[in-house]
Amino acid sequence: MARINDNFLKLKAGYLFPEIGRRVTAFNEANPEAAKRLIRCGIGDVTEPLPAACIEAMHAAIDEQADASTFKGYGPEQGYAFLREAIVENQFAGLGISADEVFLSDGSKCDTGNILDIFGPGNVIAITDPVYPVYVDTNVMIGNTGEADESGAYAGLVYLPCNAENEFVPAIPDQKVDIVYLCYPNNPTGATATREQLTAWVAYARENKAIILYDAAYEAFIQDPAIPRSIFEIEGARECAMEFRSFSKNGGFTGTRCAYIVIPKSLKGYAADGTEQAIHSLWSRRHSTKFNGASYPVQRGAAAVFSEEGKKQVSALIAGYMGNAQLLREACLEIGLPVFGGINAPYVWVGCPEGVSSWDMFDRMLGQANVVITPGSGFGAAGEGYFRISAFNTRENVEEVCRRIKENLG
Amino acid sequence: MARINDNFLKLKAGYLFPEIGRRVTAFNEANPEAAKRLIRCGIGDVTEPLPAACIEAMHAAIDEQADASTFKGYGPEQGYAFLREAIVENQFAGLGISADEVFLSDGSKCDTGNILDIFGPGNVIAITDPVYPVYVDTNVMIGNTGEADESGAYAGLVYLPCNAENEFVPAIPDQKVDIVYLCYPNNPTGATATREQLTAWVAYARENKAIILYDAAYEAFIQDPAIPRSIFEIEGARECAMEFRSFSKNGGFTGTRCAYIVIPKSLKGYAADGTEQAIHSLWSRRHSTKFNGASYPVQRGAAAVFSEEGKKQVSALIAGYMGNAQLLREACLEIGLPVFGGINAPYVWVGCPEGVSSWDMFDRMLGQANVVITPGSGFGAAGEGYFRISAFNTRENVEEVCRRIKENLG
Repeated sequence: MARINDNFLKLKAGYLFPEIGRRVTAFNEANPEAAKRLIRCGIGDVTEPLPAACIEAMHAAIDEQADASTFKGYGPEQGYAFLREAIVENQFAGLGISADEVFLSDGSKCDTGNILDIFGPGNVIAITDPVYPVYVDTNVMIGNTGEADESGAYAGLVYLPCNAENEFVPAIPDQKVDIVYLCYPNNPTGATATREQLTAWVAYARENKAIILYDAAYEAFIQDPAIPRSIFEIEGARECAMEFRSFSKNGGFTGTRCAYIVIPKSLKGYAADGTEQAIHSLWSRRHSTKFNGASYPVQRGAAAVFSEEGKKQVSALIAGYMGNAQLLREACLEIGLPVFGGINAPYVWVGCPEGVSSWDMFDRMLGQANVVITPGSGFGAAGEGYFRISAFNTRENVEEVCRRIKENLG
Repeated sequence: MARINDNFLKLKAGYLFPEIGRRVTAFNEANPEAAKRLIRCGIGDVTEPLPAACIEAMHAAIDEQADASTFKGYGPEQGYAFLREAIVENQFAGLGISADEVFLSDGSKCDTGNILDIFGPGNVIAITDPVYPVYVDTNVMIGNTGEADESGAYAGLVYLPCNAENEFVPAIPDQKVDIVYLCYPNNPTGATATREQLTAWVAYARENKAIILYDAAYEAFIQDPAIPRSIFEIEGARECAMEFRSFSKNGGFTGTRCAYIVIPKSLKGYAADGTEQAIHSLWSRRHSTKFNGASYPVQRGAAAVFSEEGKKQVSALIAGYMGNAQLLREACLEIGLPVFGGINAPYVWVGCPEGVSSWDMFDRMLGQANVVITPGSGFGAAGEGYFRISAFNTRENVEEVCRRIKENLG
């Protein structure tokens, strides 16, 4: 009798975004006229086309695939050297990272989920609250939690509340944890962590032989030069952290798919017998056994992000989205709502009006303004009373969203 | 203290193909002249360019990514309907499979590894021997086995020996197993399973509430119309099987990356409390949480495999590779070696000369003929005394390989 993984039965309702999708579909079917003016600022998906440099590189790579003398079959599971080297040179210069510490993949959602394969049971896992739901759900699936309570919090996980008081950066926990997820610039709150805050986390991790899973998917949106772009800017992080990066939000690769993990060879975990084990070797084995390399034309497109033209085009994309974030911040401030994020991140995190829940706000924005936002409580109990607006949209749509916010909610 | 997954420490040596890579690199460095004439028939990687229809479709999709009005961000995790529908129509017509039972991904290696996420501990797992190493290694990683013995066989796995006597199709086991991997046309032996053999397996699985993981990645190479191309041609398979398919070997997508799993909604597993659970729902949850859709341009390229032009071009590719297989078979037969496969599969499975081991044969072929083959023992203990030659190569190379086989080993 084939036995299923019973941990799946602990998962609450749908994953957040499918649930939003269901509500929007139901609304559209019931309100076909309003559906026509719907603007989606929910899921954090880019809207602008790929940079011209990436388009050009991908066309060239497709042509290589059309010719036997340049055709590429299976590539290195870890990714082509041309891309790994470009990443190190352009994103980690001076931080002591080498190209063979970079593992290319088809996406950070996959990477942040799959990474749990190499960790054992019994680790105490800490996540911020609110948080990207994938961190939580993948821990539930693999059996690192108990059941969820009424609020949706799973037994066994250590939730680190993030709120206006701590500026959405969690305090160092009192208790010992073994693995901690940190994401800065943050999804969903748009908060960033200072050098001092990250230094404290690195010190904590080293003292406790814990590992920081640092998600820097939104690094490209950092405007303030004082804010660290990588955990590896912090002394000692090579001994206690790995970093997740993506081409989704800088190059706009959400539908094209490319990402990577940086795992320093000096990062160690511990076997049951207490011996030190290199995390790099474990992930290398996992990656070469369960993955077969990212698509070659896509890797060529990703490398073009680092060309001279590509850099300029990405800067223009980022500037456009950050201009959107500024407008959204202003509109929400104008109607008197508390506003966070949106300065070094493409997400604006907004407090709901007094007494209005996150999902009520979702329904109100959908019904009254015909704008899809993301309810804060979908990211965890501490997100209740907030909502997230994504700045990934056209300027025209964002201006219209701002008008509707002021008209309907002011 | 971050604890690693100790199961990884049970894994023997390297994954087969990296090990071959290491030996070839060492040979090339020691023999720079011979290295120039090296021909690789080891890894099962295609060599011909992508079909023109796929190239054209991918260029068009890249152009869509260059224009805001046609740009595609995150797609459906399960894949675009245009591709899922084309798959059902072209590959599963009349077999009762619907488009929402198809889950697109970036590769069958990922799929066959990741599928274990949804199964619980305690399942008895059966694999054929020899076998595609990914099935074994991913079971070791997730804790479904004990330690390996001297021969590399892991405690807890049920090995189903395949040899010349049973024509490389295993007998139905005497004992109860819960999950069984079957791959036909087979990698590495090139064997196929008859309708009667698959019917017996389906009956066994239904009787034992077991699940068949049917890997049909090489389906396109079947020449004999009597041989089933899908497990779903067998009555009752919708209740006991899922099927893995790929665009790697028909369309040549090994470096471009696209594959899928077909999971009928009628396929059930069992929770600890004995309740029936739909495998389709579990995988849907896993796939939407840990995967973010296959690359859009790649999905467009894959769909072009089913266009009129695409079908003709794929047929020509297959015919070319199968012509290679025929030549390789003849060369090995001519020097008196026992030859299997290569008739409905792109792999020729050859018995080593009396008293020569698989790795000795690998070294002899590398050193004397400067041809890379795959040692049979790399696929399991029952593969000892055999080697695999891949027909994925240019005709010119294959003719040269045949000459060298006859000259050096005859």
